[in-house]
Amino acid sequence: MGHPTTILLEVFVIFAAAQVGGWLARSIRLPDVVGQIVAGCVVGPSVFGWITPSEPLDVLSEIGVVLLLFAVGLETRLDDVKRVGGSAFAVGVIGVVIPFVCGALWAHSIGPDWPRSLFVAAAFVATSAGITASVLKGMGALHRIESRVILGAAVIDDILAMLLLGVVVAIQAGGSLRIGSLVVVAAEAVGFVLVVGWLGTWMMRRGSHWLDRARNPMSPLLVVLALCLGLAWVSTRFGLAAIIGAFLAGMIASETHQRARLEEQMQPLLALLTPFFFVLTGARVELAKLASAEALWLLLAATLLAIATKLVGGWLGAIRLGPRSALIVGVGMVPRGEVGIVVAALGLSAGVFGDVLYAVIIAMSLLTSIIAPPFLALLLKQPESPAATAGRSG
Amino acid sequence: MGHPTTILLEVFVIFAAAQVGGWLARSIRLPDVVGQIVAGCVVGPSVFGWITPSEPLDVLSEIGVVLLLFAVGLETRLDDVKRVGGSAFAVGVIGVVIPFVCGALWAHSIGPDWPRSLFVAAAFVATSAGITASVLKGMGALHRIESRVILGAAVIDDILAMLLLGVVVAIQAGGSLRIGSLVVVAAEAVGFVLVVGWLGTWMMRRGSHWLDRARNPMSPLLVVLALCLGLAWVSTRFGLAAIIGAFLAGMIASETHQRARLEEQMQPLLALLTPFFFVLTGARVELAKLASAEALWLLLAATLLAIATKLVGGWLGAIRLGPRSALIVGVGMVPRGEVGIVVAALGLSAGVFGDVLYAVIIAMSLLTSIIAPPFLALLLKQPESPAATAGRSG
Repeated sequence: MGHPTTILLEVFVIFAAAQVGGWLARSIRLPDVVGQIVAGCVVGPSVFGWITPSEPLDVLSEIGVVLLLFAVGLETRLDDVKRVGGSAFAVGVIGVVIPFVCGALWAHSIGPDWPRSLFVAAAFVATSAGITASVLKGMGALHRIESRVILGAAVIDDILAMLLLGVVVAIQAGGSLRIGSLVVVAAEAVGFVLVVGWLGTWMMRRGSHWLDRARNPMSPLLVVLALCLGLAWVSTRFGLAAIIGAFLAGMIASETHQRARLEEQMQPLLALLTPFFFVLTGARVELAKLASAEALWLLLAATLLAIATKLVGGWLGAIRLGPRSALIVGVGMVPRGEVGIVVAALGLSAGVFGDVLYAVIIAMSLLTSIIAPPFLALLLKQPESPAATAGRSG
Repeated sequence: MGHPTTILLEVFVIFAAAQVGGWLARSIRLPDVVGQIVAGCVVGPSVFGWITPSEPLDVLSEIGVVLLLFAVGLETRLDDVKRVGGSAFAVGVIGVVIPFVCGALWAHSIGPDWPRSLFVAAAFVATSAGITASVLKGMGALHRIESRVILGAAVIDDILAMLLLGVVVAIQAGGSLRIGSLVVVAAEAVGFVLVVGWLGTWMMRRGSHWLDRARNPMSPLLVVLALCLGLAWVSTRFGLAAIIGAFLAGMIASETHQRARLEEQMQPLLALLTPFFFVLTGARVELAKLASAEALWLLLAATLLAIATKLVGGWLGAIRLGPRSALIVGVGMVPRGEVGIVVAALGLSAGVFGDVLYAVIIAMSLLTSIIAPPFLALLLKQPESPAATAGRSG
């Protein structure tokens, strides 16, 4: 009883392309994600056109990155993140301010008026935690102090980026900027993160023995997956990315005594579903729109600016960890991934960007996501500095 | 950086509803699937309306049932199925002919002309392997001879149902029936199953040591998942259901020496994704359309007919295994699940069915899927008969 579905073909192509891309990347000593993103670019509309981003594929991609950040949270203890709270906060704030200010100045210099320039600048702001988290996890480096700073900063970063985008959209529409409502939105988002983080971990520490009651080795996984999907949705209700809720759910689940088994059980889920996130990220670039000298110069400038500003912002924020660790944090914050792509899509549909600027911002998001991981992997391979080791928990 | 998505809420609701429904069913000693299907009916448009079937959810559901049949194939050896080939063939053929003939006579007796009656009859034909496979797997009964007959018959059944639907659609359109092209379609489908089954298992027996070359505990899983998704798509190209290809891929993978680890690794994937299949099956029923005495009588008649004809067909086909085993096979073939739903949807869009007959066929498919599993579970709990045990492989 056949119901012919091209979507099944696309699912197969995405999965297979990710394996081939990841294998090729590994064989030239690059992180898997780089190969998977490039593979997405190759099988996507720009080159072979075997897959086309669509709503079902987007949902698979979203579930993939939600599970990835859940698994990353599972290897992260709240107490460890609290210990680096000051650095994470500084990295989050400085890493948003510098790219935003420089991005706006650059955008204004190439033409758009100030409201549009601020919109362009918003695309320079938000870090994609998924790409960096995947590299950190793949190298077994999630226990390092730099990783905890990066993950803490990613939460701050996402809250600030959400607020900034709200402001920029309001300015664009010519509407008045109500500071009062912004403060409420900010307070809700911060409150959500704090309440879920603290209350959730507190409850889980006390209640995790209940999870073994059912005597089914799968039931703890089922409970924490429900928590992950539920918090992913709730965090979108507070204006945050779904991955923030998933990361918090993972941190809560890391307090259970079934943690090791849960980490094991997450492996097949990540193996099947995260490729959809990375391949679709790559599939969104439109190479044809970049085939002019002007577009390529714009892309070069935007990419250098995106890398330099986040690197400096992250470095300054984390400088108290020592220069090497600060560099790791800076590089870790560079990938824009799907977040820049979301801003670009908003800008295109609002008529703020033209086709070329849209393609440039997508390609910039992608390039930062491809360029940063190899450097991050290289830096992580070298031994930890004494300052960083001193900050690590038992 | 939030992009509000109601789909994330639906994903959470489906997953959570499946857990609650499964738990309630277990607590009154019914198979999980029954609770999950009923939960789908409750959270679906008919009752609470928290979820609405949509393309992204359909894709998740399809991936869920594809993985389920892959896992079932993983516990099934080709040699074991070949040993029961005669019975499986008889069950497949008789189990298609009796429901089709009786369905057509019944449909004609309630009104529609012959071409339409044949279309209605097609909805009585095809067994949903997913529902029965889930019960067999959940009870650890996949090694039993009855299970191998049911799975083999499901492949035959799907090929015949595909051909029958082709014939019925052609008659409907008033087009001439070209026997020649039907023979080609049939030969292609049979050829696909035989070539993939035999060549695939032969190659895997010789080549599975290659899978450990990468020294990554996940790589055999990645290879066989790619095989599963690839064959699922290819089988739709031959007019067959995606689950037939997935089942064949599972049988091929069962020849590897990594089989035990693969079965272990499939557990989390099934836990996350099969609920989408069962819950969405339940969500498709439209209770409002059934709220008349006439519709309820029609539903009662259709359901009794669907159960009786498949039961007798399966029983007659498997009678050489002894009466108890034949009964298990008959009950195992009863669920129509998503297959009846696909035929009903085709009929509605082709203008062959009215709203009420459409709702009746959907509800019939659902009822057969809810009624059969408890009886199947009950029959499987009793000890195997000597005749059946004798047929089991080491």
